[in-house]
Amino acid sequence: MEIHFMMKWWGWGDPQKTFPMEDKPNLWSWVCNILALQDKNKISEPVSREQVILPEANINQEFLSEITSKLEANQIYTSDDERLEHAYGKSYADLFYARKGIIKKAPDIIIYPHTHDDVEFIMKSAQAHNVCVIPFGGGTNIVGGVDPRDQTMTAKGMRCIVSLDMKQMDKVISIDTQSQTAIIQAGALGPILESQLCEKGWSLGHYPDSFEFSTLGGWLATRSAGMQSDAYGKIEDMLVSLKMVTPTGTVITRTTPASSAGPDLNRFIVGSEGILGVITEATMRIHKSPEVKDYRGFLFPSFEKGVEAIKECIDKNWIPSMIRLQDEFESQLAFNMKSPKKGFEALIQKQVKKFLLATGYQKPCIMIVGFEGDLKNTQVISQEAVKILKKHRAFSLGKSVGKTWSKDKFNIPYLRDYMMDYAVMVDVAETAAVWSKLLNVYHKTIEEMKKRFAEEDNGTGTGYIGCHISHTYHTGACLYFTYATKQNPNKEMEQYYGYKKLITDTFLKNGATLTHHHAVGYEHSPWMETEVSATGLKALKAVKDVLDPKNICNPGKVLPVEEEMRLGVFGIDAPEAVHQSKSRAKKRSGQVSRNLNENTIS
Amino acid sequence: MEIHFMMKWWGWGDPQKTFPMEDKPNLWSWVCNILALQDKNKISEPVSREQVILPEANINQEFLSEITSKLEANQIYTSDDERLEHAYGKSYADLFYARKGIIKKAPDIIIYPHTHDDVEFIMKSAQAHNVCVIPFGGGTNIVGGVDPRDQTMTAKGMRCIVSLDMKQMDKVISIDTQSQTAIIQAGALGPILESQLCEKGWSLGHYPDSFEFSTLGGWLATRSAGMQSDAYGKIEDMLVSLKMVTPTGTVITRTTPASSAGPDLNRFIVGSEGILGVITEATMRIHKSPEVKDYRGFLFPSFEKGVEAIKECIDKNWIPSMIRLQDEFESQLAFNMKSPKKGFEALIQKQVKKFLLATGYQKPCIMIVGFEGDLKNTQVISQEAVKILKKHRAFSLGKSVGKTWSKDKFNIPYLRDYMMDYAVMVDVAETAAVWSKLLNVYHKTIEEMKKRFAEEDNGTGTGYIGCHISHTYHTGACLYFTYATKQNPNKEMEQYYGYKKLITDTFLKNGATLTHHHAVGYEHSPWMETEVSATGLKALKAVKDVLDPKNICNPGKVLPVEEEMRLGVFGIDAPEAVHQSKSRAKKRSGQVSRNLNENTIS
Repeated sequence: MEIHFMMKWWGWGDPQKTFPMEDKPNLWSWVCNILALQDKNKISEPVSREQVILPEANINQEFLSEITSKLEANQIYTSDDERLEHAYGKSYADLFYARKGIIKKAPDIIIYPHTHDDVEFIMKSAQAHNVCVIPFGGGTNIVGGVDPRDQTMTAKGMRCIVSLDMKQMDKVISIDTQSQTAIIQAGALGPILESQLCEKGWSLGHYPDSFEFSTLGGWLATRSAGMQSDAYGKIEDMLVSLKMVTPTGTVITRTTPASSAGPDLNRFIVGSEGILGVITEATMRIHKSPEVKDYRGFLFPSFEKGVEAIKECIDKNWIPSMIRLQDEFESQLAFNMKSPKKGFEALIQKQVKKFLLATGYQKPCIMIVGFEGDLKNTQVISQEAVKILKKHRAFSLGKSVGKTWSKDKFNIPYLRDYMMDYAVMVDVAETAAVWSKLLNVYHKTIEEMKKRFAEEDNGTGTGYIGCHISHTYHTGACLYFTYATKQNPNKEMEQYYGYKKLITDTFLKNGATLTHHHAVGYEHSPWMETEVSATGLKALKAVKDVLDPKNICNPGKVLPVEEEMRLGVFGIDAPEAVHQSKSRAKKRSGQVSRNLNENTIS
Repeated sequence: MEIHFMMKWWGWGDPQKTFPMEDKPNLWSWVCNILALQDKNKISEPVSREQVILPEANINQEFLSEITSKLEANQIYTSDDERLEHAYGKSYADLFYARKGIIKKAPDIIIYPHTHDDVEFIMKSAQAHNVCVIPFGGGTNIVGGVDPRDQTMTAKGMRCIVSLDMKQMDKVISIDTQSQTAIIQAGALGPILESQLCEKGWSLGHYPDSFEFSTLGGWLATRSAGMQSDAYGKIEDMLVSLKMVTPTGTVITRTTPASSAGPDLNRFIVGSEGILGVITEATMRIHKSPEVKDYRGFLFPSFEKGVEAIKECIDKNWIPSMIRLQDEFESQLAFNMKSPKKGFEALIQKQVKKFLLATGYQKPCIMIVGFEGDLKNTQVISQEAVKILKKHRAFSLGKSVGKTWSKDKFNIPYLRDYMMDYAVMVDVAETAAVWSKLLNVYHKTIEEMKKRFAEEDNGTGTGYIGCHISHTYHTGACLYFTYATKQNPNKEMEQYYGYKKLITDTFLKNGATLTHHHAVGYEHSPWMETEVSATGLKALKAVKDVLDPKNICNPGKVLPVEEEMRLGVFGIDAPEAVHQSKSRAKKRSGQVSRNLNENTIS
């Protein structure tokens, strides 16, 4: 059978597609300049499929024959291509190894359930045979959420690992037009569920960056946030009820707009990242397809001015569906992604630039603002919100900027692959903080990262970091950082985890959260105790232990793993650790490397 | 020391206050008529304080001396008055027994912590000495949330029970004006916390019916909803972070506007009703004190028309801060609570009535609509919302009706005491359902209850039931029923639990939730499995077992108690049970009675 990889096994997105650099003539030279890249040739392209070596499959035959007796042949795979497709998510670490053809651990069997009953059957069988189950939606997780990590040794050796690919459970089962809810199978990819809803005039309104390649179940399992979360909420706000199959039974929550019948079980499950079981379907709050989608661009003289404007919109209750405020650095990136204007347009642009420079916009920050919904409602809200933005010195760039942003919004992840070809380390980190702490978190993060860039061992002594605010709330907002520097040869993982540790420590030390919407996986798990307190962690673990007593559900995720803690893989016990001496930091990142290398195939 | 009871020990609210019947000359005769009350004398007044007999205190001396060694004398009480004040909540069953002077079980020690550290100390000591701890806020719970229920027998006999009265922890600790959050101690009563916030220009905006006598901690523990929840959300939506002291450690959640760091621990704690520990303080989302408070009354020709109007306001996103739609029966009650007009006003009223009758308002339903906030914002929203209401045949009653409602809004609970003096059983039940099920739940509930009234054994064959919608959501709304009938002499508890069973079964069978904001206590606990599924219940129990392994925290609440289930106290295993034969129902309610009577003091 011919395998069609839904995404590149070594990178982001559609295997047929690369980052559209051709219409951005200024971009690459700007990047090379910023990162001080000397060698402008592709020096680190991915190996060919043939060069990838997969670890030998570890099949539990009793389990496999039980599964085979009930499911159809086209639901069960043990081929290397399928195993490769499900071996990694899309974190920098995942792609770094995949591109080299190093598969540290791969699932042994890939199963595609068609129904809720299939999932119940598979889970029962997995529980009986002590087989691990990793729910797999689109596989876009960038914190190690879908990677096989089980290290449990049994009398029969290591446990067999199943990747449960949910993508064939992709139907909108029913729409309740009165209640504005839809029952949707968890494996539906963004475009697939939106098209089914759209046909009937409805929309879920959830558009995370990964929209094209991620699923409803994945969004729920990771507490995802879409671009228009200001209007529609985070995924947990849209959730009405769900079904989750655990090794010890199925949780079914009640379809009700609100309740006070004990703690909210939906919120036990949302964010559980497959460690409790598999979400098979959910009743979601939906909206009429918006009559109006009005996106506009503005320039602010500073990040601070933009934040003031957002805060006043929130205070006055004129809240756009989307606000995305880019800092000066990310705005520069955006400017360099535009095609240069020609002739008269270029002249105008030059004059505008001159005017802006003369009036205090030396470090201009772009804001993209979106209004969606009913015609009358968006008219009123946009009118009032824009008044407030202008009060805080927003310079209107018109609707074309909104359109440009919208066109490229799902392309940014492809840029990472492009840069990795040139041996660049590139990653993102996001957090959220209350307004009184937000700018401090922003400045401290930029400062700490620039300091680290200056100390870089990669021969450049420099790097890029930029940030945008997206997802705003009454009490605060999300900060989303993108950073890049040349890879440090032969120390790529020390480098990567070094930055991850630095930025995460900086978040937590300054009162921000561990993650706003990328979730925990294994990469963030060492910080969980700092985030939720030791007793809080005990409560999470209690639910895990009772629903999944054999730890067969996505082991090694969310909850810190003892061994990792002991080895100090990330070297974190408390936020204060960020101030550890440089030698100690070096020693710790050395440990990271050793530990990771032990798992690699030489 | 002179004891000042904050609330009547035998009824609702301020001991100095009774229901203001004097300005409602039509009300009582209307009630007597509706309920077919023959005997219009007070035949069932509460006994005097002297006639109340308290069970002997069961003091754990080791615990008491440990506590006494650290806390001040005015923090620890064992007096009968204090024990009486903390023996019951305010459910009909609670008041029925209290009024007769029957105290089935009372706490043995009452402790008033002053600080978070006090609570940690008390909890540690209670854990060491196996003493039960019941957090007590205002004690207004009407589903048995604060009643001592522990039946655990130890080698030293029954366990000593502490009521932990939080009311001295009543400070707004700090306000973060930028983030619009306040850190508030959990024991602050509604008026106390609002006055501290108001002084600085802020408001929490949470006004449940019990506002005057309930606390922040109680609201959080029961997932309370305030009258303006449409604008400000339920209490869980306002919560940013909190501290909860458990017998095995303190949970501290992170102050962040949003997160994806695992399941949301705040939501493990909100709704836990003291069974996991004691909430000591919380960071809450606050709002600027609203510039405008604009309340208005309307009449609709039917409940259905009112629902249509609400749905269109939500669909078009012009949502008032409060919508309260009363059905025809509750509207009649409201009409009969008004002072009759005189002279010219009476003439006008008569003409209006004539006009309404002629144009299809035979069964008029009152809607109270409120708009709160910024001047410009409320102007726009009210204008658009009122347009929609009028489209659905809303007849404007002007602002005076809003004012009348606002004046009496906290008085309604006093009416229950008034009616109980006349041997009337009166109770409330509330639920929520998605829009597509809402009207069916409404009609089925009215129908079932009227059928039961007709079969009443109290000699009247009749009763009252009315309903209002409050708390609306994108996907549905809350239904709040009030019902009354003459007490069935010597079978008051069979009667009460019979109605509770009937109405709760009707809710669950027709797809509504067990409770929207009254919580579970012990009265609703037998339905928890139906509400959250067996596996869901296992998850809740897991958290309880690990944080409170000795079950010292408010035992017997939220989670169904085995023995009660076995005895069939409420006779519920599944919603189908509502269709059980009448004889079986009788047998079961007989068991209720026997079981309850066993605990009474004869």
